Amino acid sequence: MPALDALAERLPADTVIVDPDVMARYLHDEAEWAPYEAALAVVRPRTAAEVQAVVRWAIAEGVALVPRGSGTGLSGGANALAGSVVVSLDRMDRILDVDPVERLARVQPGVVNDDLRARVAADGLWYPPDPASAPWSSIGGNVATNAGGLCCVKYGVTGQYVVSLEVVNGRGELVRVGRRTAKDVAGYDLRGLFVGSEGTLGIITEVTVSLLPLPRESRAVVGYFPDLVSAGRAVAAVTEAGIIPAALELVDSYCLRAVDEWKNMGLSAEAEVLLLASTDVPGAAGQAEAEALVGCFEDGGATFAAVSETAEEAQAFFAARRLAYPALERLGPVLTEDVCVARHKVPQVLAAIQEIGERNDVTLANIAHAGDGNLHPLLITPVGDEAARERAQRAFEEIISAALAAGGTVSGEHGIGLLKMGGLERELSAEVLAMHRALKAALDPHGIMNPGKVFAER
Amino acid sequence: MPALDALAERLPADTVIVDPDVMARYLHDEAEWAPYEAALAVVRPRTAAEVQAVVRWAIAEGVALVPRGSGTGLSGGANALAGSVVVSLDRMDRILDVDPVERLARVQPGVVNDDLRARVAADGLWYPPDPASAPWSSIGGNVATNAGGLCCVKYGVTGQYVVSLEVVNGRGELVRVGRRTAKDVAGYDLRGLFVGSEGTLGIITEVTVSLLPLPRESRAVVGYFPDLVSAGRAVAAVTEAGIIPAALELVDSYCLRAVDEWKNMGLSAEAEVLLLASTDVPGAAGQAEAEALVGCFEDGGATFAAVSETAEEAQAFFAARRLAYPALERLGPVLTEDVCVARHKVPQVLAAIQEIGERNDVTLANIAHAGDGNLHPLLITPVGDEAARERAQRAFEEIISAALAAGGTVSGEHGIGLLKMGGLERELSAEVLAMHRALKAALDPHGIMNPGKVFAER
Repeated sequence: MPALDALAERLPADTVIVDPDVMARYLHDEAEWAPYEAALAVVRPRTAAEVQAVVRWAIAEGVALVPRGSGTGLSGGANALAGSVVVSLDRMDRILDVDPVERLARVQPGVVNDDLRARVAADGLWYPPDPASAPWSSIGGNVATNAGGLCCVKYGVTGQYVVSLEVVNGRGELVRVGRRTAKDVAGYDLRGLFVGSEGTLGIITEVTVSLLPLPRESRAVVGYFPDLVSAGRAVAAVTEAGIIPAALELVDSYCLRAVDEWKNMGLSAEAEVLLLASTDVPGAAGQAEAEALVGCFEDGGATFAAVSETAEEAQAFFAARRLAYPALERLGPVLTEDVCVARHKVPQVLAAIQEIGERNDVTLANIAHAGDGNLHPLLITPVGDEAARERAQRAFEEIISAALAAGGTVSGEHGIGLLKMGGLERELSAEVLAMHRALKAALDPHGIMNPGKVFAER
Repeated sequence: MPALDALAERLPADTVIVDPDVMARYLHDEAEWAPYEAALAVVRPRTAAEVQAVVRWAIAEGVALVPRGSGTGLSGGANALAGSVVVSLDRMDRILDVDPVERLARVQPGVVNDDLRARVAADGLWYPPDPASAPWSSIGGNVATNAGGLCCVKYGVTGQYVVSLEVVNGRGELVRVGRRTAKDVAGYDLRGLFVGSEGTLGIITEVTVSLLPLPRESRAVVGYFPDLVSAGRAVAAVTEAGIIPAALELVDSYCLRAVDEWKNMGLSAEAEVLLLASTDVPGAAGQAEAEALVGCFEDGGATFAAVSETAEEAQAFFAARRLAYPALERLGPVLTEDVCVARHKVPQVLAAIQEIGERNDVTLANIAHAGDGNLHPLLITPVGDEAARERAQRAFEEIISAALAAGGTVSGEHGIGLLKMGGLERELSAEVLAMHRALKAALDPHGIMNPGKVFAER
């Protein structure tokens, strides 16, 4: 039995939690039906030095650590392993520094995404990564999963904004990796290796992100479509036209109804499928881009497409998009897919997803970062219906197969965690998986960093 | 003695070169005074399978391999080691595929940067990374050094455009790393680890890059300054104004005179220091940004600043910027610095560089990707003047110290190679260097991939 007392002695009084009732909410993330087990303890450190003390203790005792941000993950990456210690970074939630001249912010890992966005907006700055979980998810968790969001089609994923990281590595050393300047080639990109590594290489204790000037103008374009495939054609038309919108989102009527039932926004009657695009190109060029987007929507088969008349109207549609996932969760367990395919494959894969849902008798709602080819079919099951759960899990695996068959990936932005381990093994070659194992062993020689997640360690 | 015959037998007749006269031009890059030694052979494979045969032979024989693109590197990364085999990728120079809808290009590593840019421009597409060496340097070499260029201030470095790589790894396996889609979180970012690794982890045999739509409009802004420090202040003013220009370059009068003497462009009489900026924001907003840049230049102390009247005029200034390095090389050995500092430190570090040049009696010319804080003081010595060479090398090290003291990096975009190994050891902590060694050992277990470059392997 590992010496928990020795751990508690190294940390302030209320840092180590062993009460099962209090621990319960730290044992899993939001991945539906991903397994989790009883942890030995949950620790809630306040400083990097405390994190380092936990890691050194874990090395000495041979205890696995499971790092965790806000627990909004959708792949089970933060789920507790039997006998592990969960390291919750939720108390390390301070914005340490915002530098408006260099356009950098330095934050602790537990800072909530929207809080950072609000803070830098006060200086006319913008932190682009905007996962739909932004009101709840933490920057550390965003980095660990290389979170995406609506902005990615034009502005890229979280990793693109991570300048440097302070981490406690697998040897219990507190190190800083990444750039100190706008660019560098000073050794290997360790920063990039930690981004998206889902806690398997170390624990992030500080993040420095780069910022952009806050866009001054935004125009939204809304299109109504009779079905998924025509919306998919419109997405392909946007790509073919050489337009890179600031967002290009798909929401189906099932999602819109769920949002309406919850928030009464009156959005759902209009169409089976909605496409929402925005452009932040200023002035007449922005108006021209918005009108070109309308043309692409019409080419795809929109029954209605228009540039949004007011900022409020555009905001309402994008708010509905962001609320789709929690709105559906109110109705019962939601298993969330996250496959990503080449943009021109979007219509084909959306059709395959629809067929998989129908054949397995699974209720499917669709949201998608359509401009990236990142599809989020949401598999909805009635509470307690075991047969429906099995059908949903089968459909989940079939959607992965469809994405892989189309040359896509099993995860666009949610990570592998536990739910996609089988899929990753099918996506990567045996040689590349072996390279993963070699890297993990090199940086986590004691095998304590979230072992058994992402890939099997053999 | 390694069995060169066994290697030659596995490859087509003219692939293995052992004639010292022919080998000579493959033994070093353009890093002035970086050491290089006699190679056992130079191989010029035509296919990935041939590269793989070379690597497998090297593993069996315990021979070090030195991968090489066009040899335009400025840090000695491609310099031959005693008893090594140089693997020149210059024959693998085909553009394999350009996909205008997905905006991707798949190329062999030996494709010259400008050739790729010209090819994709025919489809209205743009490959942004534009090192000044673009007319000669290869994409494989650009990836291996994570090359920068003029575009970086707005569009980032080479790595940002590398979607996936085919590499022969240190186990002699031909693997594909990186994304198959616009984004993914499918395992560790091995792609990013190979970018900038200077041939120490494997040999790149194919590169897939992402492309952007070709910008339709461009406006240039030119400013004349009486000295480096006032130009530096103007750069800081641009950052403070929240403007992200498409380029922001500094060229001093020494460079302009050298270009004039070579190409007779009539540029040098006007100012001690020139700042060149461009904006590709379309329409009235672009004109407003250009005018705001003029304002920043005037705030910094410009004696003249204006939006360029004609595209030809703007082109001429940027052409001069690109020609500065080869123009100076005509005058004698040029030792090129590549330090990078935070943008607001640019005036301070430019002043320190000037002081170092004067104190060491070294002729210094300055070019800089000023908008990134990436400074390229060029140390010029008369041919055959040993004392001047020693003074230049001392100044080179002192400039590194000045950059590190200002919180900067020893290499913004040229890489570490041989010339910056001491600097890297000062920049990174011992723990982070140990992580580098562990990663190298994990992916290059036989220690054959460009050993002894970037960091000492101990």
